[in-house]
Amino acid sequence: MNSPLNVIKIGGAIIDEPELLEKFLAEFAALEGSKILVHGGGRSATEMSKALGLKPKMIDGRRLTDAATLKVACMMYAGVINKQIVASLQAKGVNALGLSGADGNVLPAKKRPVTEIDYGWVGDIHTEELNETPLKNLINADFTPVFCALTHDGNGHMLNTNADTVAMAVAVMASRFTKTRLCFAFEKNGVLLDVNDDNSVIPSLHIQEAEKLILSGKIHSGMRPKITAANDALNKGCHQVIIANASNLSAVIAGKENVLFTEFVKG
Amino acid sequence: MNSPLNVIKIGGAIIDEPELLEKFLAEFAALEGSKILVHGGGRSATEMSKALGLKPKMIDGRRLTDAATLKVACMMYAGVINKQIVASLQAKGVNALGLSGADGNVLPAKKRPVTEIDYGWVGDIHTEELNETPLKNLINADFTPVFCALTHDGNGHMLNTNADTVAMAVAVMASRFTKTRLCFAFEKNGVLLDVNDDNSVIPSLHIQEAEKLILSGKIHSGMRPKITAANDALNKGCHQVIIANASNLSAVIAGKENVLFTEFVKG
Repeated sequence: MNSPLNVIKIGGAIIDEPELLEKFLAEFAALEGSKILVHGGGRSATEMSKALGLKPKMIDGRRLTDAATLKVACMMYAGVINKQIVASLQAKGVNALGLSGADGNVLPAKKRPVTEIDYGWVGDIHTEELNETPLKNLINADFTPVFCALTHDGNGHMLNTNADTVAMAVAVMASRFTKTRLCFAFEKNGVLLDVNDDNSVIPSLHIQEAEKLILSGKIHSGMRPKITAANDALNKGCHQVIIANASNLSAVIAGKENVLFTEFVKG
Repeated sequence: MNSPLNVIKIGGAIIDEPELLEKFLAEFAALEGSKILVHGGGRSATEMSKALGLKPKMIDGRRLTDAATLKVACMMYAGVINKQIVASLQAKGVNALGLSGADGNVLPAKKRPVTEIDYGWVGDIHTEELNETPLKNLINADFTPVFCALTHDGNGHMLNTNADTVAMAVAVMASRFTKTRLCFAFEKNGVLLDVNDDNSVIPSLHIQEAEKLILSGKIHSGMRPKITAANDALNKGCHQVIIANASNLSAVIAGKENVLFTEFVKG
């Protein structure tokens, strides 16, 4: 088998729409070979915080992950969304196994150091310190790992980590034992030159060009974490990094013609 | 190695007291050989339901697991408590990996049939239908499974299941590939003849005697699920079933003298 292991990351908009999510999970279930799913949390944590009467703590426009916010993240990401996805994949014949970074120590992180800003219980991943053995053991035992965007500090604390970063780190670990493709799946056809034209997909993009397009305002700055993660994955051993429409997933991965997507390339 | 795999079940009172839980987890971490932890949820789900303004739905004095209650169970058992325990065990050098029954399909169940009562999203386990391979693969890969009391129906739904029953089912599965001891760890020294005298431990108990003591009111009827689970485990291949004080765990398992506990025996 020379087909790569696929690490698929899905984000907020798909998580928030039960129909989109079910459609995506059917696409994911149909992918052949080894695969890993990484999911964000969508609006679920924000909505639960509101239901519990918690006020988001902001510093300089950034949300602080205080203890209450972290607890809600654990509740919604590891408790509700991860189990819902795992149960749904099991119903589709995929032997899914849900993971936070603490489980099996698959993804340890470091609490972000306090400088001018204290981000709270946020974890930064240092890929050079990751040990891929637990992940490899799960793949070799025929499980399909499903990661939520939580890590841990090794001292007994869970940490909140950006889901694009988690996907990058998982793909980098997988690259150490097998050929790996990282795919950021979302609700658009790829990175668009014109956000209102879903056919304006940039077929091939490298980091310098992406930075230029962000500076010029052509690419939304909200894409930056994804682009940084994509670039890191490529530079740290990942065979291929693409961004594609979640509903085209199997067609893109099967290499069907006339299906739009963006491939990140080295600069 | 002829020392058995230990399946340890901890219940509510320990979960609800952070200090008791930390002390227990240190005891658990110190156990040698393969081990599995099964935990209940304590008061966490009830408290979260209250915080969210959910009213418990009762039928004939029994709580109904409606969709909202199930979601809260997933939030608290799989999301908060399971991850807190896993992160804490990782900090103590145990390669813990958290599981619901859906993860890796380790513990499928069947939604309880509706008769006079509809219990809602409650799962019954049929041990003869369980496949021990996923659990065996996790143990062989040197993970320490940590189960919360959730199962799934194989059709995409999570289910709420009694934690004593989960512990029994896990021990029965483990018994198929290795010698297994099941230990119900709680805040008393064993099954007591006098609930006010912590030294009145019944050293050896079989199901007929237990039923008699429940009928006569000497054993609280709340012990029934534990006693049924203990009896099932013994009859389905478990090598030893004991009930002991969580804070004596390592002493009991090491076979130290003068430490009280109850051993279930075949009738």
